[in-house]
Amino acid sequence: MQGAVLYDPRDVRFEERPDPKIIEPTDAIIRLSATCVCGSDLWPYRGIEPIAQPTPMGHEYCGIVEEVGSEVKNIEPGQFVVGSFFASDNTCAICRAGYQSRCVDARLMGAEGAQAPRLRVPLADGTLVATPEVPSDDLIPSLLAASDVLGTGWFGADAAAAGPGKTVAVVGDGAVGLLGVLSAKQMGAERIIAMSRHEDRQKLALQFGATDIVTERGDEGVAKIKDMTDGLGAHSVIEAVGTQESMMQAIRSTRPGGHVGYVGVAHGVELPGDELFFAEVHLHGGPAPVRRYLPELVDLIWDRKIDPGKVFDLELPLEEVAEGYRAMDERRAIKTLLRL
Amino acid sequence: MQGAVLYDPRDVRFEERPDPKIIEPTDAIIRLSATCVCGSDLWPYRGIEPIAQPTPMGHEYCGIVEEVGSEVKNIEPGQFVVGSFFASDNTCAICRAGYQSRCVDARLMGAEGAQAPRLRVPLADGTLVATPEVPSDDLIPSLLAASDVLGTGWFGADAAAAGPGKTVAVVGDGAVGLLGVLSAKQMGAERIIAMSRHEDRQKLALQFGATDIVTERGDEGVAKIKDMTDGLGAHSVIEAVGTQESMMQAIRSTRPGGHVGYVGVAHGVELPGDELFFAEVHLHGGPAPVRRYLPELVDLIWDRKIDPGKVFDLELPLEEVAEGYRAMDERRAIKTLLRL
Repeated sequence: MQGAVLYDPRDVRFEERPDPKIIEPTDAIIRLSATCVCGSDLWPYRGIEPIAQPTPMGHEYCGIVEEVGSEVKNIEPGQFVVGSFFASDNTCAICRAGYQSRCVDARLMGAEGAQAPRLRVPLADGTLVATPEVPSDDLIPSLLAASDVLGTGWFGADAAAAGPGKTVAVVGDGAVGLLGVLSAKQMGAERIIAMSRHEDRQKLALQFGATDIVTERGDEGVAKIKDMTDGLGAHSVIEAVGTQESMMQAIRSTRPGGHVGYVGVAHGVELPGDELFFAEVHLHGGPAPVRRYLPELVDLIWDRKIDPGKVFDLELPLEEVAEGYRAMDERRAIKTLLRL
Repeated sequence: MQGAVLYDPRDVRFEERPDPKIIEPTDAIIRLSATCVCGSDLWPYRGIEPIAQPTPMGHEYCGIVEEVGSEVKNIEPGQFVVGSFFASDNTCAICRAGYQSRCVDARLMGAEGAQAPRLRVPLADGTLVATPEVPSDDLIPSLLAASDVLGTGWFGADAAAAGPGKTVAVVGDGAVGLLGVLSAKQMGAERIIAMSRHEDRQKLALQFGATDIVTERGDEGVAKIKDMTDGLGAHSVIEAVGTQESMMQAIRSTRPGGHVGYVGVAHGVELPGDELFFAEVHLHGGPAPVRRYLPELVDLIWDRKIDPGKVFDLELPLEEVAEGYRAMDERRAIKTLLRL
């Protein structure tokens, strides 16, 4: 089969790769219906994360099960499934507590690369969630979004304790931040402030439920959020970037006793302990335990109550994956969907 | 009157200071029954926090109300009261959410110095909690402890989500850490691991409800906690020191999805964002909103269900305050109570 491989910064190639095979008896092989490029793929693409060797790319996936290992009990060939970017057993104490991304046997799905027609999914029973039937084509983008960006935005909103009566601010207007807006709305937040200076993203944020747009960032962004909240700060802030500036903007925009949910993969962040101490906020985040939320998210999508697939504003055939990266790198696209 | 004033590192003087007077109509003046030396007083005492000018010391207090300002409605002369080290209005949005230490009108009680016979308490109605009657002498140490160290240990345990079924580890064996043990016990924790290498403190930890003692610290301490918890880490860790080592020990001892409650005043702490991201713990802490917990804590003490006053292992008359500091600095005492 042919799939995406990153050789060097900005050098993504679509080339021959070995077909995946069942290795462990708990594996499943799926034929992807669609895959996509993640904001986090841009870190190595831009050379900010080192690339030691040619690396198969992609960790977001949904599709039809083709084959399962001998110990797989609940997932069967023919089912349409969505899975998280972390495989998990979903039975250990950490999974049972809802932290499948830190399962004692967690496997990052990136290793074999989901930007390809077929994918081996380890720990299939603990990782995959099947839809009631094979979905119609128009549901595919939203189901694919559940695999990572929706699940991650949802975790950010949950970690930020978004809910009724709350003012939620969202730092970061990428796909995760935008779906953080959608998640906060679903959770019943009263006011949702999207921090964005890009018109296309502002528009989508408003469609997803944002009540206000703030274009300022850094200290000015903080001051603006304070202005809008009687000087107190937001109850809940979702951090969906992962830089020092965005983390401090999130912490400083949160009122004492409020919650910061951080889901932007941290790069070069150092939190000053004394400021954090006196800020007196709750901090929680990390790689989203998407599997915890998947059953609920799949239901919401299936019932057409949410439409997270709208974050895909560029659709390309898989073989044009390199253009998919370029468009996101150059901010011509929020998120690229790759059709099989 | 005469009270404690810190001039330079290790130079505490007991000297003439102006008698407190009602300044604002919301003030109360109280005659202290007892006061004490706080672990946090040792930071400037040891020269780790700079001392710009001779500074009245002390912020823990309980005693009899002598006089109230014209706008004080609920507190009256003759009542025995306990208050937090932060004065708060207890009516603003932040106070109503339980974060009185970050009240929009918060006043740190240290400014006028509670290591003295009399003290002005601002925002008396929002700050002070009266006991049902004037307590007998043997309850004074415990009621005094509620003013800071008990309330702070309690907040640490609460922020760490201590509760039934939980394994709680406590980093720091000072008065706050020891009362974190007591608090976790009261909250129903199943297993409480006190990290301490001092025999007197270990003994008190066991009296307060610790089920295990760990003498290792740093990475070895972390490894020990992991060993004791199937390799996962504790559900809840209370950090009651405030150094880089203790914070990292706390974070690394916590399982993914677990909670770190940090109440040691941070000094020189920098949290590495990438490690924090993948640790996937909850972090919460800061200056304890003691006022939130005071009514409950006063009840528990009044009904003799808890005896936090045991942390005072040295009792001196107020005029010997300098010796009280020395004893704590040299670790001859856990905490010094100063009688009036």
